[in-house]
Amino acid sequence: MNEKVLNLIGQGQYAQARKELIDMNVVDIAQLFEEMDRDVLLIIFRILPKEIAAGVFTYIPPELQEFLVESITDKEIISIWDKIFFDDAIDFLEEMPSNIVKRVLKNTDHETRKLINQFLNYPEDSAGSIMTIEFVDLKKEMTVAKAIQHVRETGVDKETIDNCYVIDNNRVLEGVISIRKLILSDSELPVKDIMQTDIKYVNTLDDHEKMITLFKKYDLLTMPVVDNEHRLVGIVTIDDIVDIIDQENTEDFQKMAAIQPSEKEYLKTNVFTLAKHRILWLLVLMISATFTGNIIRRFNDVLSSVVILASFIPMLMDTGGNSGSQSATLIIRGLALGEIKPKDFLKVLWKEFRVSILVGVVLATVNFLRIYFLEKVDLMISITVCLTLFFTVVLAKLVGGLLPIAAKKVNVDPAIMASPLITTIVDAVALLIYFEFTTIFLGL
Amino acid sequence: MNEKVLNLIGQGQYAQARKELIDMNVVDIAQLFEEMDRDVLLIIFRILPKEIAAGVFTYIPPELQEFLVESITDKEIISIWDKIFFDDAIDFLEEMPSNIVKRVLKNTDHETRKLINQFLNYPEDSAGSIMTIEFVDLKKEMTVAKAIQHVRETGVDKETIDNCYVIDNNRVLEGVISIRKLILSDSELPVKDIMQTDIKYVNTLDDHEKMITLFKKYDLLTMPVVDNEHRLVGIVTIDDIVDIIDQENTEDFQKMAAIQPSEKEYLKTNVFTLAKHRILWLLVLMISATFTGNIIRRFNDVLSSVVILASFIPMLMDTGGNSGSQSATLIIRGLALGEIKPKDFLKVLWKEFRVSILVGVVLATVNFLRIYFLEKVDLMISITVCLTLFFTVVLAKLVGGLLPIAAKKVNVDPAIMASPLITTIVDAVALLIYFEFTTIFLGL
Repeated sequence: MNEKVLNLIGQGQYAQARKELIDMNVVDIAQLFEEMDRDVLLIIFRILPKEIAAGVFTYIPPELQEFLVESITDKEIISIWDKIFFDDAIDFLEEMPSNIVKRVLKNTDHETRKLINQFLNYPEDSAGSIMTIEFVDLKKEMTVAKAIQHVRETGVDKETIDNCYVIDNNRVLEGVISIRKLILSDSELPVKDIMQTDIKYVNTLDDHEKMITLFKKYDLLTMPVVDNEHRLVGIVTIDDIVDIIDQENTEDFQKMAAIQPSEKEYLKTNVFTLAKHRILWLLVLMISATFTGNIIRRFNDVLSSVVILASFIPMLMDTGGNSGSQSATLIIRGLALGEIKPKDFLKVLWKEFRVSILVGVVLATVNFLRIYFLEKVDLMISITVCLTLFFTVVLAKLVGGLLPIAAKKVNVDPAIMASPLITTIVDAVALLIYFEFTTIFLGL
Repeated sequence: MNEKVLNLIGQGQYAQARKELIDMNVVDIAQLFEEMDRDVLLIIFRILPKEIAAGVFTYIPPELQEFLVESITDKEIISIWDKIFFDDAIDFLEEMPSNIVKRVLKNTDHETRKLINQFLNYPEDSAGSIMTIEFVDLKKEMTVAKAIQHVRETGVDKETIDNCYVIDNNRVLEGVISIRKLILSDSELPVKDIMQTDIKYVNTLDDHEKMITLFKKYDLLTMPVVDNEHRLVGIVTIDDIVDIIDQENTEDFQKMAAIQPSEKEYLKTNVFTLAKHRILWLLVLMISATFTGNIIRRFNDVLSSVVILASFIPMLMDTGGNSGSQSATLIIRGLALGEIKPKDFLKVLWKEFRVSILVGVVLATVNFLRIYFLEKVDLMISITVCLTLFFTVVLAKLVGGLLPIAAKKVNVDPAIMASPLITTIVDAVALLIYFEFTTIFLGL
């Protein structure tokens, strides 16, 4: 398909190419755009039906959007602008340099300009920033027949018409009704008799997390957004929620690997930015690791008197770090999905304690068999190493399980209490236990 | 709201409670059910309108579902069963013990039973396992008016009617048309003139990842599922996609923390299962860490002759591990989101190389200033430590960046090449570099 179209374009057969293109999905056309020369792209963009051109426009990268807006006439801008969904228009403006924004705004009427400015001012993490104004609103006095008529007349441009929203004369949200229910109901009934009044909604300033939670809990496709006076100002649609779920997860993955979060794709981020996002945490953790180094220095005498002791340090540190990271990851993820709440503190403590005993016993036993029987390490040293291993695992799992919850309690992002930080803490703990036990069991 | 209802129920005012309940969202009612005594719950379940009862039923935990099915009559089972969406019914049957499954199947007709058995046999990770049979199908010869009529008559039970699917007499999928387009179009036009033929679809056996990718790429709300003969057998809806996105992410988080993945919530998993999922990888990594121990043992002479050298080992190991984990996490996430492809191998290599030089220089410089000027460590030792640090960071980032892509190329899940494994590898590498440099610079 794609090659056929590109060939037609290559041969200058634009009319034929247009025919092929209008049967294609706008996302696929947008992808083709990225492979075309810019002058050809401009021709194709201009010969496409306006509705398709507008759809394609919302899916091409910002560089190409900028190029197109710079190349087309004001009249063309207006005709495309009319066909773009409002939330896509806002996304576009957020990415553009100010001269492009000015040019576009110049070509919109006063009301739209006011609305755009209002939307551009919502905080990045708010419901307002991702809502759209394309929705169907009804009045509760309308009959079902009239409501369906209204949907037909105005529903055309709406992103989804699965749900209609009922508002009063001050635009205060009063109810919600699915199109399914409208079609099923007796056409003479007033909307207020069949609308649902237990509405799940958010405020313009509510954050993404709250929206995600509601969408998931109630399996919603759309959700109304209201202002402080409970007036309906927009709706959020599930496709945008899917995008922000990905964003939030990416952020968690990054934080858990001690990287400052960024929304930008890896391959599209320059080397300096990538380095900048990594250095801070590495420095913090590097300096923290010197505490561990200091512990070793303090026990240098012990290490040089029984030289084999040093060789177990990496195994103890790694196993401790890994054990703690496992617990931390499960708790951080549980907190993010709302499956674990801060009030479950004691439950988590008790669970991790029992798990750590099981895990610790297995690891210490396997390790004892290996070093005492296979590597013929001295009995007392074997015991010291394996007891250290056991207590390190138990402590690591308790620290790993509890730090994320503690962070959540004091409103710090639990994702920070992940592998790198846990490892640094557990390293020091493991060594302190180790040297304590060498004193006790080996009399050093 | 919830307390009011619970109070009414507590006082035995069931009729009043029913009135409150029917205005509530079924998800909220399901949550109330979890707080009720079982005998009260049974009363409430029975007095609710069947449609609401069916909705509530799909949202309560399996234990309660089992209890209800055991407690109600066959006639009641049939009336509830009729109102449950097919995919929810399948989810329910998958969780139930065989006696419950038998009892439910006994109360369904032959055709449904056949269909249920077919659905229960789809592999867990397939499109077939999450699709539903509630969708609207049209014929391409229908006029728009007839199609709308058909939607009205049959659309009632459908999970979403935003999209209708056009099939031929053998149920082969021919097109898709949005309800929006139907309502807008001239009512005498045949459906085939306005339907879209560039359809995004999956096969019953396609995996979750493919579905997620298509849903995200094309901002879909529903997607048709076809069999090998391209016959339409079901549709997948976005709410189920949101659930599996969460599942796949949870799996990645778990694998990246060296835990065998499990879908079950942490607080609902017993201690033995939790321990079992963690032990295997800990054992593997513990034994791998002995290589690092062996390196230390080989260089025991060096360590005992210049005792301060040992104290830098934790810092070198930790910083190396953290540097590698950062790169691995970004690449694993990029691969999961489809932003990085295996063919980007060289791009990633070049990018990580430059980032690692920047990061390495900064870390080594800060460290040099700290240990040489602040801690007054000998100059040659300071140089040795900082050069080791630099090369460790560079190597760690290359290993961390490339292992996940290499894994993807040979069809191993990249998520396994995360922090724990990278750390173990980098530990050994860091020590080898360290001891090599002590030989060169300190002549040991």
